[in-house]
Amino acid sequence: MTTLLTNIREQQPLVLNVANLVTMQRVADAINVLGASPLMTDEVAEAEELVAIADAVVLNTGTLSEARWPLFVAVGQAANRQHKPVVLDPVAVGMPYRAQFVTRLLEMITVDVIRGNAAEIGWFAGVTVAGQGIDAHETDAHVANAVNAAQQTGATIVQTGVIDVITDGQSTRQVTTNSLLLAVNVGAGDMLSGMVGAFVAVTDDYLLAGETAAQVLGQAGEQATAQGPNQPGTFVATLFDALYQMAQAEVIA
Amino acid sequence: MTTLLTNIREQQPLVLNVANLVTMQRVADAINVLGASPLMTDEVAEAEELVAIADAVVLNTGTLSEARWPLFVAVGQAANRQHKPVVLDPVAVGMPYRAQFVTRLLEMITVDVIRGNAAEIGWFAGVTVAGQGIDAHETDAHVANAVNAAQQTGATIVQTGVIDVITDGQSTRQVTTNSLLLAVNVGAGDMLSGMVGAFVAVTDDYLLAGETAAQVLGQAGEQATAQGPNQPGTFVATLFDALYQMAQAEVIA
Amino acid sequence: MTTLLTNIREQQPLVLNVANLVTMQRVADAINVLGASPLMTDEVAEAEELVAIADAVVLNTGTLSEARWPLFVAVGQAANRQHKPVVLDPVAVGMPYRAQFVTRLLEMITVDVIRGNAAEIGWFAGVTVAGQGIDAHETDAHVANAVNAAQQTGATIVQTGVIDVITDGQSTRQVTTNSLLLAVNVGAGDMLSGMVGAFVAVTDDYLLAGETAAQVLGQAGEQATAQGPNQPGTFVATLFDALYQMAQAEVIA
Repeated sequence: MTTLLTNIREQQPLVLNVANLVTMQRVADAINVLGASPLMTDEVAEAEELVAIADAVVLNTGTLSEARWPLFVAVGQAANRQHKPVVLDPVAVGMPYRAQFVTRLLEMITVDVIRGNAAEIGWFAGVTVAGQGIDAHETDAHVANAVNAAQQTGATIVQTGVIDVITDGQSTRQVTTNSLLLAVNVGAGDMLSGMVGAFVAVTDDYLLAGETAAQVLGQAGEQATAQGPNQPGTFVATLFDALYQMAQAEVIA
Repeated sequence: MTTLLTNIREQQPLVLNVANLVTMQRVADAINVLGASPLMTDEVAEAEELVAIADAVVLNTGTLSEARWPLFVAVGQAANRQHKPVVLDPVAVGMPYRAQFVTRLLEMITVDVIRGNAAEIGWFAGVTVAGQGIDAHETDAHVANAVNAAQQTGATIVQTGVIDVITDGQSTRQVTTNSLLLAVNVGAGDMLSGMVGAFVAVTDDYLLAGETAAQVLGQAGEQATAQGPNQPGTFVATLFDALYQMAQAEVIA
Repeated sequence: MTTLLTNIREQQPLVLNVANLVTMQRVADAINVLGASPLMTDEVAEAEELVAIADAVVLNTGTLSEARWPLFVAVGQAANRQHKPVVLDPVAVGMPYRAQFVTRLLEMITVDVIRGNAAEIGWFAGVTVAGQGIDAHETDAHVANAVNAAQQTGATIVQTGVIDVITDGQSTRQVTTNSLLLAVNVGAGDMLSGMVGAFVAVTDDYLLAGETAAQVLGQAGEQATAQGPNQPGTFVATLFDALYQMAQAEVIA
């Protein structure tokens, strides 16, 4: 964990986002406190040149639209051509429109990592998991779904929940750090996807990148929750404090 | 108040928003800490299916545009067809473009609740109330305007100010909780509109829903203000803490 | 500094923004805690009438697009016609698409103040300064670039960095207040641009306006950093607290 955090702090990778409009600021902050640089784009004409300076790309379909479809394709294809890793956050992919959007997208681009909750990852495995909208209510044993999703898509899966499951279809790891307030927080998943972008920018081991991102956010979430278990508002600020302090640990120490 | 909060926490209603792009994160957070689930959309093609899983719809015209006009209509009409309650937040409706936009919208959809400040509600009553942009400077006795606006529109009115006025044109209630920092805060009105969405999702009594939402936000605002009367930045976090604690009161106690 | 802050608090100027979608809430908050009123627009059809009630206009190209090009032109031209001051924040203007966008824009509108980091301001001077994306890594002595940029563009330049340089090409001032956490913060530059909008709204002396805005944000940043040097999350809230307290100083005292 320390090594990858050090890599991010030293290499300052640029993470290009086709972002969820709801949580853009929070995602940018999360990428930023790790020591990486966030950049968001909303224009297809600059896709190629921004991907060229980026070290990783994150596509979040939280506020997808037909108007933004060319943007998702252009940024994703540019990243594929330029061999930059692509992270997909398929928000609420179980809904019909979103499902066909993501299906179409995966026919046109290759994604390296998919980060989602149990309901979203279940969709890639062809399984219906309880949960609606962006909040998937946890059930036991979604590990098999994640492995299946990895095998179906060829992507490394980062499935978040009470237990996070990270798998490339062959190897599977679990992260058990957790915090109520992280689950309560709108955009925690989006933040993690952005953070995964920062980690895949500094290593080719996407399994390790996903695992580390989940650990870092989980530990920061636990620390921040401990400071005020019933304070989800204050939590947002203390979560960023904790992330920054983890990322800067050697500098501060 | 407690009953409706319990209903929200237990039913976890989904509140679908055509949101003000400026304040989306904050509105999503407000809906979320109450125990409801926020969802934002920016695509007309998914309107029908998202309304189908939603328990209420909130239309906020804070960043309206011709490009988003079909979205407002599609979501509003789908909600009407599917008998889901519709809350309208007509930000700065006194301006000419916004006035005709809202006029056109009300010709095509039925709204159940309108949440606005005195200047915005005054517009529905055909009265010019001092105030520009999003900040309406309070004057005395806007109660008559609110009643008139309710009668003109057929909607329940939630008019916020030093005294909040909630009226369906027949019965009128006032909420006197208040806090300077809530008034200072960009997006407090948008947050309340989102919260009204959560409340109308769990009761058919829109007068009670509007009154309760105003009470809950007002009390949380007073609590948060008391913790730092000159700290509008810290206030945002402590406001969400207070809202969450009110919503979880029985669970925590 | 006190005089201009008093002017803002008393005149409550309206600052109209074609905003960076990432940081809109934070920019609106910054304008707001000073005592000015923020308003964002995303619709060309309301440009003329919103400029008419506005006291200054801020154009931020952080999330520029062809779709929003008419909006930048319409708001900028309306401001020129109506003699309202225009502030430009040319985020990442060194990138080719953004460069031609800003070049085209400056052929169609006159801007009064340009606020950017050393890399962005260097671009106006025809000089390449190290730095990518939104984070310009500081080097020594960018003063000449800023003066040159002012002379090339006819605008007052507010160049931010370890030392802020404010210049109209004739007179040059420096602001040395600084804080690590302000530099770390996503949107600090955008916030300053919004704040410059509030200051140019209450004085014709744009050099003083730019200098004062930089001082106010810098001092607030130092105060907030002092409260928690390793807490960039908490910093956001305490920064707004500090800005508000500076703006309200006479009222509070």
